[in-house]
Amino acid sequence: VIAYNRTRRHAEPLRADGAQIAGSPADAVRDAEALVTMLADDQAVADVLFGGAAEAMPRGAVHASMSTISVDLSRGLAEEHHRRGQQYVAAPVFGRPDAAAFQKLWIVAAGAERAVEHARPLLEAMGRGLTVVGTEPAAANAVKLAGNFTLASMIETLGEAFRLMRGSGVEPRQFLEVIGNALFQSPVYANYGGIIADEKFEPAGFKLTLGLKDVRLLLAAADGAGVPMPFAGVLRDRFLEAVAHGRGNSDWSAVAKPL
Amino acid sequence: VIAYNRTRRHAEPLRADGAQIAGSPADAVRDAEALVTMLADDQAVADVLFGGAAEAMPRGAVHASMSTISVDLSRGLAEEHHRRGQQYVAAPVFGRPDAAAFQKLWIVAAGAERAVEHARPLLEAMGRGLTVVGTEPAAANAVKLAGNFTLASMIETLGEAFRLMRGSGVEPRQFLEVIGNALFQSPVYANYGGIIADEKFEPAGFKLTLGLKDVRLLLAAADGAGVPMPFAGVLRDRFLEAVAHGRGNSDWSAVAKPL
Amino acid sequence: VIAYNRTRRHAEPLRADGAQIAGSPADAVRDAEALVTMLADDQAVADVLFGGAAEAMPRGAVHASMSTISVDLSRGLAEEHHRRGQQYVAAPVFGRPDAAAFQKLWIVAAGAERAVEHARPLLEAMGRGLTVVGTEPAAANAVKLAGNFTLASMIETLGEAFRLMRGSGVEPRQFLEVIGNALFQSPVYANYGGIIADEKFEPAGFKLTLGLKDVRLLLAAADGAGVPMPFAGVLRDRFLEAVAHGRGNSDWSAVAKPL
Amino acid sequence: VIAYNRTRRHAEPLRADGAQIAGSPADAVRDAEALVTMLADDQAVADVLFGGAAEAMPRGAVHASMSTISVDLSRGLAEEHHRRGQQYVAAPVFGRPDAAAFQKLWIVAAGAERAVEHARPLLEAMGRGLTVVGTEPAAANAVKLAGNFTLASMIETLGEAFRLMRGSGVEPRQFLEVIGNALFQSPVYANYGGIIADEKFEPAGFKLTLGLKDVRLLLAAADGAGVPMPFAGVLRDRFLEAVAHGRGNSDWSAVAKPL
Repeated sequence: VIAYNRTRRHAEPLRADGAQIAGSPADAVRDAEALVTMLADDQAVADVLFGGAAEAMPRGAVHASMSTISVDLSRGLAEEHHRRGQQYVAAPVFGRPDAAAFQKLWIVAAGAERAVEHARPLLEAMGRGLTVVGTEPAAANAVKLAGNFTLASMIETLGEAFRLMRGSGVEPRQFLEVIGNALFQSPVYANYGGIIADEKFEPAGFKLTLGLKDVRLLLAAADGAGVPMPFAGVLRDRFLEAVAHGRGNSDWSAVAKPL
Repeated sequence: VIAYNRTRRHAEPLRADGAQIAGSPADAVRDAEALVTMLADDQAVADVLFGGAAEAMPRGAVHASMSTISVDLSRGLAEEHHRRGQQYVAAPVFGRPDAAAFQKLWIVAAGAERAVEHARPLLEAMGRGLTVVGTEPAAANAVKLAGNFTLASMIETLGEAFRLMRGSGVEPRQFLEVIGNALFQSPVYANYGGIIADEKFEPAGFKLTLGLKDVRLLLAAADGAGVPMPFAGVLRDRFLEAVAHGRGNSDWSAVAKPL
Repeated sequence: VIAYNRTRRHAEPLRADGAQIAGSPADAVRDAEALVTMLADDQAVADVLFGGAAEAMPRGAVHASMSTISVDLSRGLAEEHHRRGQQYVAAPVFGRPDAAAFQKLWIVAAGAERAVEHARPLLEAMGRGLTVVGTEPAAANAVKLAGNFTLASMIETLGEAFRLMRGSGVEPRQFLEVIGNALFQSPVYANYGGIIADEKFEPAGFKLTLGLKDVRLLLAAADGAGVPMPFAGVLRDRFLEAVAHGRGNSDWSAVAKPL
Repeated sequence: VIAYNRTRRHAEPLRADGAQIAGSPADAVRDAEALVTMLADDQAVADVLFGGAAEAMPRGAVHASMSTISVDLSRGLAEEHHRRGQQYVAAPVFGRPDAAAFQKLWIVAAGAERAVEHARPLLEAMGRGLTVVGTEPAAANAVKLAGNFTLASMIETLGEAFRLMRGSGVEPRQFLEVIGNALFQSPVYANYGGIIADEKFEPAGFKLTLGLKDVRLLLAAADGAGVPMPFAGVLRDRFLEAVAHGRGNSDWSAVAKPL
């Protein structure tokens, strides 16, 4: 395994586990059979791939792109790798860094069948589950964005409901207990509901600015597919408003807090 | 037990279980220690209570009002019973008729402590769980409306996401499997998600017109409490649009189907 | 002319113009050929009419109801007067008190043809224009509410545009000049636009709480007619939010000010 | 004057007025003192400018960019021309082609003072009015997008109001007369209101797909400036829905027609 990180000292600890550290993306991939990328955003992925890595990758190698990126960039990467005789699998993940550390990620993959099979052992080694959603790589990116949208909608829903509860003399925690027992029975509602009820938005599990980025990518995907999404439109404004009120570095569930 | 139903033949089968059948609400409650009402809407509850039942109830008796009604009517009932020296507990339920038949309801109650204790044995006999949310009866009605709002928001969220999935070449069922495994792990998402994915909106588990009624009551409660609820506003329009398209008698999850 | 005001000293100055002052609504209308009411809201109108005035009015007399009220109350008044052999015209107005003083109101009337003709001389004496929109009185109330909705939408639109202009380094006044010259050429845009650009929300020309009341009545009318109105739903939340931020007594255009 | 059009035969008629016809954008600008572009969208403008025209323009020449484009592209053009020692003025217009033919455009310009002065005689020759909104070129593009937003909001507002009017038994034309006389007194309300009332959406004055494009650019500008715009979010969904219903080639006011 050859590792590369823009900030070299972040990669160094991997030496202890037997990894080599590359000085550039191109160096990292020159002899690779497979490239796994997990980066912050479209810009970072484009910089690495179009800035040398795609060119340096051997023909036939497979790129498993695990970042949460736009469907447009995913389409662009698919073309680029195709043009160079390389394989490409979009394989975004559900789960935070600590979930990754304990092999608890859920991975959604899409790409040509051969490419997916090529990447499968790597993906299975990284996650607790893998769903393959088709042969069009960008579909996996759309699933990731739509999945985050369902979380963001849940957060906004709980925020609105809690505000009504407080205005009605009911503790959010009590309401949460009711809908947990009577309806959802879901750990995600319990966890996020607890954070919102207690307003424990720091430290951020997932930063609000990243949530805004994902809503933006979702709306771009919806626009491209000609799909109206009224809840997503509301979320966009709520995230923008929250950022304007200085909550960009709080957990994205801080969008549920009244201004 | 003395039973009354506006349509007498609906009450008759209860004779076999030992119930007496009353000819009017007033007759039913004249010697009652406790009155339990479970009716369709505000109008039906007001007709029964202000149309004779409250006047006929003995002083000291308790009324457990289990219908989904407005917070305003609940406040009016509280006053009426207080004026007459009677007790009042708002005790709306989560769960459909078949859940009631198998004692699977979750009951949310609110009212003066003595009134709740008075009604408790009855409520516990009817449900699998009971949450008491305070001494102000209308608070329980607000909890019920906010709970239904969380369901309606989930339905709309899944509808928007599924539409994007279809536009991205992904089967809604696949998406549902991903968010079920990776995120929510909730039977409610699985059940409603399945209905929406398969567009099996008939027969209705809960009619769309009733869903619209509840959104209306929710917005009235929010208005009274001075709480903006943008998602609820979107839901109102979606339900109105669905009714305008002839889906009033379908399951309320039909609101998620594109027009 | 016999005048009545709940606060008697508000009516007293009218003596100088030759009016008599009545001690109660019933006294004011007992021998009247026509009753003109212009009151704050549904409650005030219902109190006066159902609290004695309708009962005291002679058969055949006409009631011109000029307040901004709900379509439901307007329907209730129509029934009540019909039952008593009286005539009823809904005749709400566009224009503020100072417009009324200078006979500058625009009046929208609806009612049975005979009733409208009966009231016409009075209405024409009060306004600069009169539009009759049908024989169903509540239609005139719907027109008034929809008219106020177009104003509220314009206010919100300008608020959003101005905010983007400020974020783009353009003075709202400059933007207003452009759209005034290039597009709308409307005194209403110029006036409200100027108030919003300069944030001169006090003294209120029309209080924000009254604006919220009208949005509420509009949404009730839309609900009754089965009409989705997404902009109206947004306005509802904006007004609620503005009231929550203490702007209830400012001009309703303060809804355009960022929080 | 040297003219260029991607479709040469569109340019040919200009010969009669004394223009030369260039075979490429680069040929058209090689010796020009000023370049005026008025093109369909970002793509067309980028193709022309980055595809040869910017490179071919002399140092010191001024580019007056009159298309409705994104603020991002406008910023990119500003940089490009600056880098090449050229001048750049963003000068989008209000008014359709027939308005242009009769010198009835209203032009909004922004750019360095010297550049604006350089372009002023050209701009004044083309329009009936010119507003200069600052030295940052992209500001003029933001004004254009926000101006179109005020029109789109008016269209949606009238659509919602008309729908309520129909549901209340009032002819949209009557309602339009009332708000025209009593409130707006604006030719734009009269014109668009008439089109919407009569549902005369063909032939399109401005195509619905172009309206969607502009809402998209507006939301991108708002996002870049961190400004929530709830009405714009609603408009986005309404335009997407209208396109999905096959109205993309109708006039953009067809967005007001119920689905």
